[in-house]
Amino acid sequence: MREFEIDWDREARTGSAEAILCDGKSVAQIEAILAAAGDRRLLLTRLDGEKHDALAAATRRRLDHDPLSRTATHGAPAPVRRPGPGIVCAGTSDLPVAREAARSLAFAGWAAPIVADVGVAGLWRLFARLDEIRGFSVVIVVAGMEGALFGVLAGLIAAPVIAVPTSIGYGVATGGRAALTGALASCAPGLVTVNIDNGFGAACAALRILETFPTAPHPIP
Amino acid sequence: MREFEIDWDREARTGSAEAILCDGKSVAQIEAILAAAGDRRLLLTRLDGEKHDALAAATRRRLDHDPLSRTATHGAPAPVRRPGPGIVCAGTSDLPVAREAARSLAFAGWAAPIVADVGVAGLWRLFARLDEIRGFSVVIVVAGMEGALFGVLAGLIAAPVIAVPTSIGYGVATGGRAALTGALASCAPGLVTVNIDNGFGAACAALRILETFPTAPHPIP
Amino acid sequence: MREFEIDWDREARTGSAEAILCDGKSVAQIEAILAAAGDRRLLLTRLDGEKHDALAAATRRRLDHDPLSRTATHGAPAPVRRPGPGIVCAGTSDLPVAREAARSLAFAGWAAPIVADVGVAGLWRLFARLDEIRGFSVVIVVAGMEGALFGVLAGLIAAPVIAVPTSIGYGVATGGRAALTGALASCAPGLVTVNIDNGFGAACAALRILETFPTAPHPIP
Amino acid sequence: MREFEIDWDREARTGSAEAILCDGKSVAQIEAILAAAGDRRLLLTRLDGEKHDALAAATRRRLDHDPLSRTATHGAPAPVRRPGPGIVCAGTSDLPVAREAARSLAFAGWAAPIVADVGVAGLWRLFARLDEIRGFSVVIVVAGMEGALFGVLAGLIAAPVIAVPTSIGYGVATGGRAALTGALASCAPGLVTVNIDNGFGAACAALRILETFPTAPHPIP
Amino acid sequence: MREFEIDWDREARTGSAEAILCDGKSVAQIEAILAAAGDRRLLLTRLDGEKHDALAAATRRRLDHDPLSRTATHGAPAPVRRPGPGIVCAGTSDLPVAREAARSLAFAGWAAPIVADVGVAGLWRLFARLDEIRGFSVVIVVAGMEGALFGVLAGLIAAPVIAVPTSIGYGVATGGRAALTGALASCAPGLVTVNIDNGFGAACAALRILETFPTAPHPIP
Amino acid sequence: MREFEIDWDREARTGSAEAILCDGKSVAQIEAILAAAGDRRLLLTRLDGEKHDALAAATRRRLDHDPLSRTATHGAPAPVRRPGPGIVCAGTSDLPVAREAARSLAFAGWAAPIVADVGVAGLWRLFARLDEIRGFSVVIVVAGMEGALFGVLAGLIAAPVIAVPTSIGYGVATGGRAALTGALASCAPGLVTVNIDNGFGAACAALRILETFPTAPHPIP
Amino acid sequence: MREFEIDWDREARTGSAEAILCDGKSVAQIEAILAAAGDRRLLLTRLDGEKHDALAAATRRRLDHDPLSRTATHGAPAPVRRPGPGIVCAGTSDLPVAREAARSLAFAGWAAPIVADVGVAGLWRLFARLDEIRGFSVVIVVAGMEGALFGVLAGLIAAPVIAVPTSIGYGVATGGRAALTGALASCAPGLVTVNIDNGFGAACAALRILETFPTAPHPIP
Amino acid sequence: MREFEIDWDREARTGSAEAILCDGKSVAQIEAILAAAGDRRLLLTRLDGEKHDALAAATRRRLDHDPLSRTATHGAPAPVRRPGPGIVCAGTSDLPVAREAARSLAFAGWAAPIVADVGVAGLWRLFARLDEIRGFSVVIVVAGMEGALFGVLAGLIAAPVIAVPTSIGYGVATGGRAALTGALASCAPGLVTVNIDNGFGAACAALRILETFPTAPHPIP
Repeated sequence: MREFEIDWDREARTGSAEAILCDGKSVAQIEAILAAAGDRRLLLTRLDGEKHDALAAATRRRLDHDPLSRTATHGAPAPVRRPGPGIVCAGTSDLPVAREAARSLAFAGWAAPIVADVGVAGLWRLFARLDEIRGFSVVIVVAGMEGALFGVLAGLIAAPVIAVPTSIGYGVATGGRAALTGALASCAPGLVTVNIDNGFGAACAALRILETFPTAPHPIP
Repeated sequence: MREFEIDWDREARTGSAEAILCDGKSVAQIEAILAAAGDRRLLLTRLDGEKHDALAAATRRRLDHDPLSRTATHGAPAPVRRPGPGIVCAGTSDLPVAREAARSLAFAGWAAPIVADVGVAGLWRLFARLDEIRGFSVVIVVAGMEGALFGVLAGLIAAPVIAVPTSIGYGVATGGRAALTGALASCAPGLVTVNIDNGFGAACAALRILETFPTAPHPIP
Repeated sequence: MREFEIDWDREARTGSAEAILCDGKSVAQIEAILAAAGDRRLLLTRLDGEKHDALAAATRRRLDHDPLSRTATHGAPAPVRRPGPGIVCAGTSDLPVAREAARSLAFAGWAAPIVADVGVAGLWRLFARLDEIRGFSVVIVVAGMEGALFGVLAGLIAAPVIAVPTSIGYGVATGGRAALTGALASCAPGLVTVNIDNGFGAACAALRILETFPTAPHPIP
Repeated sequence: MREFEIDWDREARTGSAEAILCDGKSVAQIEAILAAAGDRRLLLTRLDGEKHDALAAATRRRLDHDPLSRTATHGAPAPVRRPGPGIVCAGTSDLPVAREAARSLAFAGWAAPIVADVGVAGLWRLFARLDEIRGFSVVIVVAGMEGALFGVLAGLIAAPVIAVPTSIGYGVATGGRAALTGALASCAPGLVTVNIDNGFGAACAALRILETFPTAPHPIP
Repeated sequence: MREFEIDWDREARTGSAEAILCDGKSVAQIEAILAAAGDRRLLLTRLDGEKHDALAAATRRRLDHDPLSRTATHGAPAPVRRPGPGIVCAGTSDLPVAREAARSLAFAGWAAPIVADVGVAGLWRLFARLDEIRGFSVVIVVAGMEGALFGVLAGLIAAPVIAVPTSIGYGVATGGRAALTGALASCAPGLVTVNIDNGFGAACAALRILETFPTAPHPIP
Repeated sequence: MREFEIDWDREARTGSAEAILCDGKSVAQIEAILAAAGDRRLLLTRLDGEKHDALAAATRRRLDHDPLSRTATHGAPAPVRRPGPGIVCAGTSDLPVAREAARSLAFAGWAAPIVADVGVAGLWRLFARLDEIRGFSVVIVVAGMEGALFGVLAGLIAAPVIAVPTSIGYGVATGGRAALTGALASCAPGLVTVNIDNGFGAACAALRILETFPTAPHPIP
Repeated sequence: MREFEIDWDREARTGSAEAILCDGKSVAQIEAILAAAGDRRLLLTRLDGEKHDALAAATRRRLDHDPLSRTATHGAPAPVRRPGPGIVCAGTSDLPVAREAARSLAFAGWAAPIVADVGVAGLWRLFARLDEIRGFSVVIVVAGMEGALFGVLAGLIAAPVIAVPTSIGYGVATGGRAALTGALASCAPGLVTVNIDNGFGAACAALRILETFPTAPHPIP
Repeated sequence: MREFEIDWDREARTGSAEAILCDGKSVAQIEAILAAAGDRRLLLTRLDGEKHDALAAATRRRLDHDPLSRTATHGAPAPVRRPGPGIVCAGTSDLPVAREAARSLAFAGWAAPIVADVGVAGLWRLFARLDEIRGFSVVIVVAGMEGALFGVLAGLIAAPVIAVPTSIGYGVATGGRAALTGALASCAPGLVTVNIDNGFGAACAALRILETFPTAPHPIP
């Protein structure tokens, strides 16, 4: 029985290389996938430090691992094309998810700066960075707790806004349901969301836009 | 069997007259309570138009009924003491609950203006009214959908802020749970909340503050 | 007290005219908003037949109302610019939400064809229309029940895919939570979602993309 | 007090030997049950590696333990009768549950191959194996996340399809509720489901069919 | 735009004719589907009396409608093949769902008797009918409330058992979630379930078994 | 600040000695309570082995600790009065909760035998013990999973039946909600329930009956 | 097909006559049951005014119907034996459920007075009636909203206390889940509960106690 | 990228110094924030013992850490102004949350005594301390389980009452949802609540009142 089917042609066909969700996979399975990869490019997500350390040393040397975002890249780095997307992050605790999105975009060749710790409890922090944010052609917003930043920011800018609720929070916010609901119920029109903590998915959604519409966006007022 | 026990001495003892929640009570029970009231003051909440119209004409004449907020007052109006509290309301659809709070405060002698339709999807609407809102010593905020206004406003003012989530919304916001969660999970410190659609309860919470600290608040910066 | 604050400059500023959610607003409030509109353009959503019929005849004459999607437009039609977005709809019962999206896009000047009744229980129906769907630069997918169409379609095309879960279904699918969960939990990377039955919101999300990247997308392989 | 009542006559009576759910039982209780078993056949489920290692060495020698599926068999192997059922598995992480089903069927004498990693995000993987799957007389489908594979596959084949949602997933898919809902809400008619992660239960359901209808199924078109 | 895609070849291809879920479809849509049907066979489910009465008289004459189960059949009756499946029903209030299953099976040519009002609160009622139930080759069990009948019956018989939880109940049993949970959490091995109130789906599941294994089952002990 | 208020007079006043829930209390707090107790009688619940081992040796010597049920008694044993209550337990894994109930009753002077492993998946096990169970004047039933035993047993006996749902189970039964719902939604009239895993509470409920009606029950048919 | 199985011997065997839950049964089914009853005693619950009025006049004359509690009795009244149980009711809106319990007890021959409108928001009302309540040998407590009365009263009396949560409430209390949780989570030991709005079930639970222990309780201090 | 934005001017502007939620922040991030603080005042919440011990020794010396409440203060202590607020705590296990509130108030200069272990299961404990509680101008109530203390106490006093539900409890009370619901659904008017375990938030709410109305409250009857 073959235990996995990797889409090796995906990058040639769609422009995005294959990604492996390491959560739920054993160390042996990850080793087997990397052995089959040869020198083809792969993005590994949810590869935490403990599981990374359990890989063989030779395997680890082939990976560029970032413990905070639990991502690793395998194979030649993509040439950085040009700026475009940006990431806005409500709190310091949301940074791991924000970095998962940034690293996923970088793996595909897009540089995405992170604007951090600009939650709505102190709006002055957000307004101080608003011009910078308005320069992004696609904005990924990462927030936990009640997720109020999603709607507030979507009301302030015209570009596509992709919400990533995080599992940061306690009490009714435990697990990220409160932030997710905040994104879905927002009255700011045109806000879209992905699953809780899914920074990788938000990056893929941004890539669908950036790769479908490759020409420069018009100047944003 | 006596079917109800009214706290007729409540106004003398606590400063707030008794209130009757009409939801779930039959027309006959409401008539009986009003018959027992004599000329004592009562506030009736959740008395919708249909139930009000089913009361005897003589009974209706003794009431000052407001269909939008489903409230009615019975007995001599309270002397209006002095300004202090204010109500901020996210959307036009939240006005019934906002008016329930305003009428409950007025019944107790406090005038509370309503600042309406200042939801966060267009922050300029809120900022245009911010000076007015900063003049309130206690602020009741009424919002449905994702309830982002609660945290945003609490981050902008120093006075006590009481959230009233409303059942306005659809999909994940149906029934008001999303707005309630938005209030509870907010990272703006010091925000408190009452049950969904409970404008009366928020007014009572404001009254607990206003009656316990009757002297003028210091000027708010 | 002013009961509403309309963003009359929104179209000039952002390219999208203001929209009014009629659910939860009284007939009198809708009349007042339309009276204030003059000849400015407005989109009205969730205006069902009963509420539309309760408007004054003169008011109704100023509206182009569609009972199935519960939308109405007010003011001069937008010039139809060029094709681009498309809508895919799982079942016949999902058509009202699909049409809400289509009418919202048309109001902003974009023609969006609907590919209907192509749910995953009979995949041949979807494959028969796949070439047509691959011609869309942005795809809105509307589905109820378990929402499997979202992930299946996102796995087949490279363009941005916006899911709209609908409240069509019974048992565990009542109210649309099952379809929403299907969209959020999908393993097809880059799928994004809006709230249940929010065809208008999906159209706005598509518009954020189409207006930010106004030049023609490159040919999609 | 007797702490357990084992149905030793079950195999003679029903054709299926007794099974012991080890989750929640202490090592001492499992030892006692095995001591009482003599050389009678037993299937042990949810016996993880740690608990297995805590058994006495003599006990362990009497068991055929598989750590991945957390199953162990005790007693003489069943003679393998003939092919029939098959197992389809969406992702590599779902293999433990798939193997629990396969081992449970093998314990009863039925060989059930596993077709692995054919989730709907890349339908080409499923179509490449479809002829093989159409050769199974009963199909057990194992999937986590949103569980879209259940309905897609049930729409493609005519044989009985038994869904096993798994707890693989994060965010809204945590714990397997999303996959379970995907199975229950599916519009593919005739799909049935068992509890989350219940590979053993799915095998028993297949056995109810295979043992009730022991003659060969007719050729499936 | 075509609003529906009917699988007219389904009966020829799979042995089961197409079925139309009328819930959520307008009267006009149902009329259009029946107009397209010609004299081909169709099963209509969830066609309640009110919607049925709104169809044109000529249309109604072409249907065999049963108000209790909200089903209608269109086209030539199937020849009744031979007995096999049976339906067990916990309470009198569960009969509409039980009849939906029975009528769906009859439409496909299988006679399925209903054993009614044998809930577990009085086990003597179930035991009095047990021999009859043991004669069924496939058993559909219909129950609301806590759904205890599912596990009890599955523990007493060896044939395939398909649970249909119903929405009959109040308090924690409102909507059928309690009965559904009772089916899924049952410790009787091999019990499978469909969505709440899905009598049609249970019939389809039985048909998958009966059509895949068309030869007579062996005598059941 | 006094950290606790013990009701030392409770046994004299009500017949039941005070009980201490150790879950959530620190070792220091438990030591302090026992120091204050002197030689007065106390029941300690949810005192797991780890916390018990962390108590001072002198303290431990004053306790009669049972690790399985996580209970300890302090002070002179109660004289065993006479039989009456009994405990019925669905599975081996439910024994810790059953023993918590039994030990709580014994502490108050009542002997309560446990009838174990008589779940409904094999009804013959229950019927074999039914005469014994019918001899109990009050029956505590302990079950996890779907909790079908509660309603089945309540339908078979006339005595008071108190359900204790346990957290034993997986998937939809995780945490005990399924068993709790099974108890509440049961159609067997007169069944009552306590919180999940609350064996102590069920014992107290039985004691309320046994102490209020201290004379012998009439012979039960 | 027989649509119902009535336990006509139940009163002779257990002391309690059969009861019919009319919710979910058609008028025709209720007529049929009453026709089969002859002059045997029956209790009908959840028979609302509308359904009662739809019965034939001759049938209605055989019933003693109470619209508030939606109960009807059929057959000779039971001789009133002696006092014992009592009912405590938190609010006026909870009276229908309290009366369902009282009428169910009366049908079995026990007089149960109702102490009404003694919710915890004004504890003086409860204390004024406490001596009366302490005279009951079994206490049924009926409350909606947060259900705090259950635990408060159970802490004040030694007799068996059976909680009946009601569906009275709004927001988070909608449907009675809040009151049910209040009963289950109460720290007052020995409190038991039945399903939401299940006044009949609480009466049956009281009857299990009263019929099992028929001798007079000892004086309660 | 700057990882945090601290509001260093907050104390000067609002009277309350900045607070840092340490949950979800890494040790390195906390060190960096404290390094940036200089000698400015900071309150650190949710800094558990393990994380505190992982800080550099020099950092720890600058903190006043309390392991029970997981709070630490940095910088000069605030001058204790005058009494006013008080804290009431239902059980011994709720003390960590109560102390978080008390330490947060002390950090801002207000002394708040804790009245502990006065839950409603033994009302005499509460009544014994009622005069003391009535002396507080603002009352924070901390309770887990079913949270009945919130409504009972709010019914007994006239001052503002802020509920803090705690995650203390098991079964249906797991995680604090039961206590939160108890606070929100309470029929005692004017009760407000914060998120589960949010002792800091309750202190901030009290500070909003105390700082807005700085003059002495009038004598409370």
